[in-house]
Amino acid sequence: MTVPYSPGLEGVVAAQTEISEVDGQNGRLIYRGGYLIEELFGRSFEEVAYLLLTGELPNPPQLDDFKAKLAARRKLNDQGRAALAGLHGDVDPMDALRTVVSAHTAAPGCPKPTLEDAISLTAVAPAAVAAFYRHHNGDAPVEPRPDLGHAANFLYMLDGEEASADRVRWLESYLVLLADHGLNASTFTARVACSTGSDMASSIVAAIAALKGPAHGGAATAAMNMLEQVPGPDAAEEFVIDRLDHHQRLMGFGHRVYRTYDPRARILRELAKEGNPAFYAVAFKVEETALRELVARHPERPNATNVDYWSAGVLAAAGFPKEFFTSVFAVSRMVGWTAHVLEYTQKDGRIIRPASEWVGPDPGRRPDKQTAASA
Amino acid sequence: MTVPYSPGLEGVVAAQTEISEVDGQNGRLIYRGGYLIEELFGRSFEEVAYLLLTGELPNPPQLDDFKAKLAARRKLNDQGRAALAGLHGDVDPMDALRTVVSAHTAAPGCPKPTLEDAISLTAVAPAAVAAFYRHHNGDAPVEPRPDLGHAANFLYMLDGEEASADRVRWLESYLVLLADHGLNASTFTARVACSTGSDMASSIVAAIAALKGPAHGGAATAAMNMLEQVPGPDAAEEFVIDRLDHHQRLMGFGHRVYRTYDPRARILRELAKEGNPAFYAVAFKVEETALRELVARHPERPNATNVDYWSAGVLAAAGFPKEFFTSVFAVSRMVGWTAHVLEYTQKDGRIIRPASEWVGPDPGRRPDKQTAASA
Repeated sequence: MTVPYSPGLEGVVAAQTEISEVDGQNGRLIYRGGYLIEELFGRSFEEVAYLLLTGELPNPPQLDDFKAKLAARRKLNDQGRAALAGLHGDVDPMDALRTVVSAHTAAPGCPKPTLEDAISLTAVAPAAVAAFYRHHNGDAPVEPRPDLGHAANFLYMLDGEEASADRVRWLESYLVLLADHGLNASTFTARVACSTGSDMASSIVAAIAALKGPAHGGAATAAMNMLEQVPGPDAAEEFVIDRLDHHQRLMGFGHRVYRTYDPRARILRELAKEGNPAFYAVAFKVEETALRELVARHPERPNATNVDYWSAGVLAAAGFPKEFFTSVFAVSRMVGWTAHVLEYTQKDGRIIRPASEWVGPDPGRRPDKQTAASA
Repeated sequence: MTVPYSPGLEGVVAAQTEISEVDGQNGRLIYRGGYLIEELFGRSFEEVAYLLLTGELPNPPQLDDFKAKLAARRKLNDQGRAALAGLHGDVDPMDALRTVVSAHTAAPGCPKPTLEDAISLTAVAPAAVAAFYRHHNGDAPVEPRPDLGHAANFLYMLDGEEASADRVRWLESYLVLLADHGLNASTFTARVACSTGSDMASSIVAAIAALKGPAHGGAATAAMNMLEQVPGPDAAEEFVIDRLDHHQRLMGFGHRVYRTYDPRARILRELAKEGNPAFYAVAFKVEETALRELVARHPERPNATNVDYWSAGVLAAAGFPKEFFTSVFAVSRMVGWTAHVLEYTQKDGRIIRPASEWVGPDPGRRPDKQTAASA
């Protein structure tokens, strides 16, 4: 049996998973174990990472052990540092992350993915982003602090000083909310890569490569680029209408799966309001006009605000320049990617090798063949 | 409409393409423009790369121009060299290729994929493999020679001296035969990555990561590892029967798409016979017994010899140690990968974001919720 071509594989079930579920009809995001995202908001990144990787929330000794492992594996090794030092400071942060993670994890053979691999990659991702942030600014890297939590240490490695509790909380919330999201394109990329028997590190490098695109991880930067063009809240309505009249896309609206307001966007909107009031004032008015106008102009399309729109405000409040938003997304999604690779290689494991439809000429119908036949 | 889960996406059409077609029922491989692989065998790598990338075989001035471009872009840049120099000599050659290509291509922004990107990546891939081959052996890299063809220069960069015409011909034939093959897992990975709007380099790094697996690009090394266990042709029959009796897999047999002898394997078998008679003598007897026994034991399964089996003998004849087979595969498939990325980003471009089926607990049915409700 052959299933006909569905552009973008829309509606094609390409995985069975218990890592997370996007219930787009009801606007619910369910994490492993059956937890609604709202129930996990407020927990630490480490607790939620443990849940996604193992299937259960940790008890206190399990959490201590997990935190200690993460803290012990935060340093870039010599391979990662050499690759970083060789990069020009102006390369895209996602190219830097792709390269540094690839170098850091280069090793003999092709080992079967393990939970230890997942923990190591989750631990080192912030170090790779922060080291390039400093390299980009012409500064030497800051060594990690094992006494700080994952989010606090990430911010510490950016600046070399402890961040405020608010900045840590905004980042930590973001890292929890974005840690997994069903079969998004980068997670699917990781699953296809590992389905060949490739190893954890390779599968994750592939996922980083896929996250970079502006239709996926790059969307928060695109939203911020758009919102920065709006001089203030009073200019928002005219900006949106003018953009739509000129058939320009509004960044941060619409999603393949959600048919209602993204539950992560709802939480991030409140955090942006708290942490980034100037951003919020503009973004709120742009959203209000956008949702009204999009419904009026395209009543057939579902067009709620997506997570990237409000992520932009929260990541800026946490202290990241917009060029680094996608790489912070990768630090969060590292948990989901590695959990999916573990699930796929432990459960199904068949090589993902779809069919294609040939739309080129048949060998007997090439122009040169036809000339020969008619001659 | 939702299409139910098909493990490995078997039979699901995930692309429309005119780059190549695997006609598994009839044992035909068709390259872009409608050329059977047998019609292209004997042409230079450069001619076939031009065909796959542009849709037409080049005329002499076009070929000269294309060759000159490839020759001019063979050198690793400073970013690639720094990443290479930082790698331990014993890492897997695919990890080295993944890292060096990622570093070499790291750049600002996220540019739309172009034909020039495709040519640059095709040109530099042999330099990355050869430079790591020498690094692995503790030798300094050999600078490329612009006066040599793609295959000849690749072998020159390995050894620092010109290879025999036979070795060049064996390698060149291999590079032509493996340059594209429908929607295989690494090509599909590249298409998923670029579907997010990610750039050419990222999409190719993702493809390299997927090719590494032993169920995909790693299969030729696996076949060689198996055949090296056979002391000689007279031991072949017993070896195969013993392995099957112990339910061990025979490497190099079976394919998702082919239901007859792989047309590339047919050509490579003849080249292995010519270039690697000792390998051929053993491999021929192993194949003879394997096909007989597999048909007898599993008459329901299609089980012809696949391309990896005979690739092993040809790549060894061309001078590559088995640990490097997969990276030479990547040098060939670079053409197909980049051609598919160009096709996808120019024609369809929708984000590839399939659905998943939730097999975890519903939020209302979590154990802790049920206890609370019954209490």
